[in-house]
Amino acid sequence: MNPAGNRLARQIAFLVEIDRLKGVLRRSYPFDAERRENSAEHSWHVAMAAMMLAEHADAEIDRERVTRMLLVHDVVEIDAGDVPVYDVAAREKKAEEERRAAARIFGLLPEDLAAELRDLWEEFEAQETAEARFAKAVDRLVPVLHNAFGGGRTWQDLGVVEAQVREVNSVIAHASESLWRYVSETLDEAVATGLLPGVRDE
Amino acid sequence: MNPAGNRLARQIAFLVEIDRLKGVLRRSYPFDAERRENSAEHSWHVAMAAMMLAEHADAEIDRERVTRMLLVHDVVEIDAGDVPVYDVAAREKKAEEERRAAARIFGLLPEDLAAELRDLWEEFEAQETAEARFAKAVDRLVPVLHNAFGGGRTWQDLGVVEAQVREVNSVIAHASESLWRYVSETLDEAVATGLLPGVRDE
Repeated sequence: MNPAGNRLARQIAFLVEIDRLKGVLRRSYPFDAERRENSAEHSWHVAMAAMMLAEHADAEIDRERVTRMLLVHDVVEIDAGDVPVYDVAAREKKAEEERRAAARIFGLLPEDLAAELRDLWEEFEAQETAEARFAKAVDRLVPVLHNAFGGGRTWQDLGVVEAQVREVNSVIAHASESLWRYVSETLDEAVATGLLPGVRDE
Repeated sequence: MNPAGNRLARQIAFLVEIDRLKGVLRRSYPFDAERRENSAEHSWHVAMAAMMLAEHADAEIDRERVTRMLLVHDVVEIDAGDVPVYDVAAREKKAEEERRAAARIFGLLPEDLAAELRDLWEEFEAQETAEARFAKAVDRLVPVLHNAFGGGRTWQDLGVVEAQVREVNSVIAHASESLWRYVSETLDEAVATGLLPGVRDE
């Protein structure tokens, strides 16, 4: 096989492999469905959200970089699975598994493309750039919408209360004052309507 | 509500609405699944494919524009549904329905963002730019992979033969000589292994 052909073969092998992200189930539910959401359709949804909400970032951001980051951010779940944001202990244990997943899956690609995706994923994980912080904010915002406008089903499944939801979503405030204000008001309303059990210091 | 708040409310309404793309079923199947693929996870997959294959475009292309175009290209299916590429008559009838869908769904957004997505969708449909042609090529390539590496299931469901598959995928040649060569050889092999009934002029 010629070098160009070999390069394409590696690109195709990667595209075939990442199809498996469609089988990784999250704890959230699409609005109209009984079934749980998978990480591939979630990745599409948050990429669209980043495109449509970029103006709300407090810092100057490269919108296309955020979009690419969100398209790639969950690919490691093919090997490592999805862990609910509320399960802090499990998330720490997953870190090593995710690093191995990144090496294996991105390693299917020619080295330049592997490096591009690895960099995007590592940037997202490190949370040190404005793009990574905004990507994380959008990744947290969309599940809040699913709960707030979808009957709070994941919150109830996981048995979480307001304080936990606020804590997990507080990272949104590091990227966007206006999105955090929106989420905060949405959570107030979810508590007021009984969708989310309110636990407050009094 | 202040104008910024109203703007965000429209952006959120759009993001909630497009969640329904996760319920639009295509004729293809993820590799590991009995279930049919939905148009949201498909949109993620082809956006990733565009990112990873952009170098194979014969013309100079803006990779990020192709990626955005593919993220948006199927949103109109929320109202108009998915039509198999082989059903030419149904596809023509759908055109008007898709235009109405674009007006309604993109119209949920603030006007500048609505215009951006409408432009991307219209560019994809018109097939007049190098970006639109490459986006279409990738959109056709991925289902070929699903069939060639997934037992030819959609081909069998639809009862299509080689000549139809070549015809439908020949648009790939308008965007990328190397991807078309790859697809052509893949179809040769699918015929040789009996996955796809070969109909040849003799």
